[in-house]
Amino acid sequence: MTSESARRVPAPDNENGDIAALMHGLGQGARAAARRVGTASAEQRNRALAAMATSLRERAPAILAANRQDLADARAAGLAPSFIDRLALDEARLEAIAQAVADIAALPDPVGKVLASWTQPNGLVFERVATPLGVVAVIFESRPNVTADAGALCLKSGNVAILRAGSDSFRSSSEIAAAMQDGLAAAGLPREAIQLVPSRDRAAVGAILKGLDGNIDVVVPRGGKSLVARVQQEARVPVFAHLDGNNHVYVHGEADLAMAHAILINAKLRRTGVCGAAETLLVDEACAATHLKPLVTALLDEGCAVRGDEATLAVDPRVTTANEDDWHTEYLDRIIAVKVVPGLDAAIAHVETYGSHHTDAIVTANEAAATRFLAEVDSAIVLHNASTQFADGGEFGFGAEIGIATGRMHARGPVGVEQLCSFKYRVHGQGQVRP
Amino acid sequence: MTSESARRVPAPDNENGDIAALMHGLGQGARAAARRVGTASAEQRNRALAAMATSLRERAPAILAANRQDLADARAAGLAPSFIDRLALDEARLEAIAQAVADIAALPDPVGKVLASWTQPNGLVFERVATPLGVVAVIFESRPNVTADAGALCLKSGNVAILRAGSDSFRSSSEIAAAMQDGLAAAGLPREAIQLVPSRDRAAVGAILKGLDGNIDVVVPRGGKSLVARVQQEARVPVFAHLDGNNHVYVHGEADLAMAHAILINAKLRRTGVCGAAETLLVDEACAATHLKPLVTALLDEGCAVRGDEATLAVDPRVTTANEDDWHTEYLDRIIAVKVVPGLDAAIAHVETYGSHHTDAIVTANEAAATRFLAEVDSAIVLHNASTQFADGGEFGFGAEIGIATGRMHARGPVGVEQLCSFKYRVHGQGQVRP
Repeated sequence: MTSESARRVPAPDNENGDIAALMHGLGQGARAAARRVGTASAEQRNRALAAMATSLRERAPAILAANRQDLADARAAGLAPSFIDRLALDEARLEAIAQAVADIAALPDPVGKVLASWTQPNGLVFERVATPLGVVAVIFESRPNVTADAGALCLKSGNVAILRAGSDSFRSSSEIAAAMQDGLAAAGLPREAIQLVPSRDRAAVGAILKGLDGNIDVVVPRGGKSLVARVQQEARVPVFAHLDGNNHVYVHGEADLAMAHAILINAKLRRTGVCGAAETLLVDEACAATHLKPLVTALLDEGCAVRGDEATLAVDPRVTTANEDDWHTEYLDRIIAVKVVPGLDAAIAHVETYGSHHTDAIVTANEAAATRFLAEVDSAIVLHNASTQFADGGEFGFGAEIGIATGRMHARGPVGVEQLCSFKYRVHGQGQVRP
Repeated sequence: MTSESARRVPAPDNENGDIAALMHGLGQGARAAARRVGTASAEQRNRALAAMATSLRERAPAILAANRQDLADARAAGLAPSFIDRLALDEARLEAIAQAVADIAALPDPVGKVLASWTQPNGLVFERVATPLGVVAVIFESRPNVTADAGALCLKSGNVAILRAGSDSFRSSSEIAAAMQDGLAAAGLPREAIQLVPSRDRAAVGAILKGLDGNIDVVVPRGGKSLVARVQQEARVPVFAHLDGNNHVYVHGEADLAMAHAILINAKLRRTGVCGAAETLLVDEACAATHLKPLVTALLDEGCAVRGDEATLAVDPRVTTANEDDWHTEYLDRIIAVKVVPGLDAAIAHVETYGSHHTDAIVTANEAAATRFLAEVDSAIVLHNASTQFADGGEFGFGAEIGIATGRMHARGPVGVEQLCSFKYRVHGQGQVRP
């Protein structure tokens, strides 16, 4: 790490002085920048994104040096290996970050897209047109790449970003943010369009959740459950988030066993730590005699612990007893809860009672059963004959996502650039007045 | 009023006992009903709406008797004539209320509408489908028709409603709510799908704004500015509302005078008390020599007071001086503020500085100027060569609206049945797993 970049990074004890004044200034800067970014052309925003990717590549030595300092502190503090892994950058990871920014530039422009248009009998032409939301605050923890991903997604959608990094990734995030701001400046856009809170003071989070005097339009928490819970509890502004991904795979009575096996193993075990991972398997009693044992055995043989109801306990001695808590639990681990249900109604009722309205799947050859499951399960994403691990903006074709939301307001499911937009109505007349 | 219906109406001193327990129960009832209504067919919801219209007609004597009691109390309390007029029902107004409910039944069904669909290279078929929002709380003041309008719009969109009437319209609203519930029951839907808070206790509003323990998804205030301000200030749940309609008509340098005259007079004076009424006229200095005097004279001759800048003061002795407050003011009266601006940029800057992001219009024959105004004015509704009084869900072709929103989250502009919906993703596979 060069001494120059070290000097740019504020100290953790907040050399910036009063945090309230600092945050107020960030909010005002963001709002002023929002108007310029919101009316900038797609070409100018894309030029900034391309310059950001270039700057991230050029600044790689400084970013990696800052990351080595963050890592040294994290190791000295005895943080967990999984945390260290999320924090760590290397040449390859940094190149992936830069390429992701370049890829976001290449997405279709969401701003100004005509979402609907129609003509009334009086000749007025109405258009509903996508517009930016305004100022998006992103609060994240260990992954420094969020600085680049979130900043780029906000700019692509005509928004400005206020980013609050976890204190353990603060140096890395600060260097990445500097690269992003250079990209903005290179395209003639205000550096305030992507601001990283230049302080580790935890009071910054509280200020953001209060909305910075009306200068934040939405908050996106990116991190563990305790962060999301705090944001959902305290925020006085809208939040795009999910607290849990307690997702279900329901193997219906008319499910093909081979398909159910492939989907279940993928949904549970492809990656156990992602929010789209399955946490509970429901097997219909109509196929339990043929399907339950092979599915449970396959899970166990893959090293997945199985916590089951009585019927499941009976098929393999390695199964342990599931209690009420298990149906509520997002394990994010090689553990699954398994239950036999007496039919479609019971399966839907179980998902609605215990689920988190994130992502749930039915496996069946019966179209009518699939239609009912997809209609009546009130989750952001419902799938028929596909793995729950497709719960991802990239897999949806959104290019990238800033997170997944389980709220019902504005955004739901993967939040890509389209969901980071609001809309307005343009009305074109020839002198019409209202009678 | 019959003694029977009198007995159904709770007393103002809250014979229901603890208001907190009462409101908690309403919230739980609403959430339970939301699942049944949300999965009911369009046919069943429309059948309920038709039965509501019938019930409103059949119960007309009881509703009008209750209204006479409300009116007698309002007159005894010395309430303003404008308030009395909003409160008053007669045979014709009640028939219009019933017909409005029947008309809502005839609207296209918004629930289950496929908003977008696409296929990914792996064969997965994605659909974004409209779903109900859940529980909508509506807080209103004097107009008892809101009970029917809001209840019907919520049911049409698969939502349930918790309605809080102003205490002065409480008896009228209670009778209308009873008719709506009879319609629900006639179609086999739960009466809890439309609940009027059975108490005049003002603590009910506070409980609603706190969200009834997670059982309210959005609040819609319908009433004066003080109500809206309180709701926006205190609500812990999303709000669809507008505080102000400080709307502008900008007469550009290339505006046709006759068109500008017709639009201005209509925008300001067709009805002065609606939120789409114009409150400020901006005249471009490029046409001020020819357009300012005739426009100002026309306003004055129609009995509209004009508060102007120096240039406006010079054209007619009846003009009085506008001060800084005037540019901020939503008069809702026969008063207008008038200013000459040095061009399009200044006009946009004025609207952005003083406006309320509700509805703003440009009059011009210059398409490029119109395009810039429509793009850069950050209002829910922007019009070219048309009156601002088109700011209305009916005029948009939405059939009806529950209100007009100036927020940027989820709904913006007139909030019709489509904006009362959320969405989910349905994913159709043939056994796909994620690599």
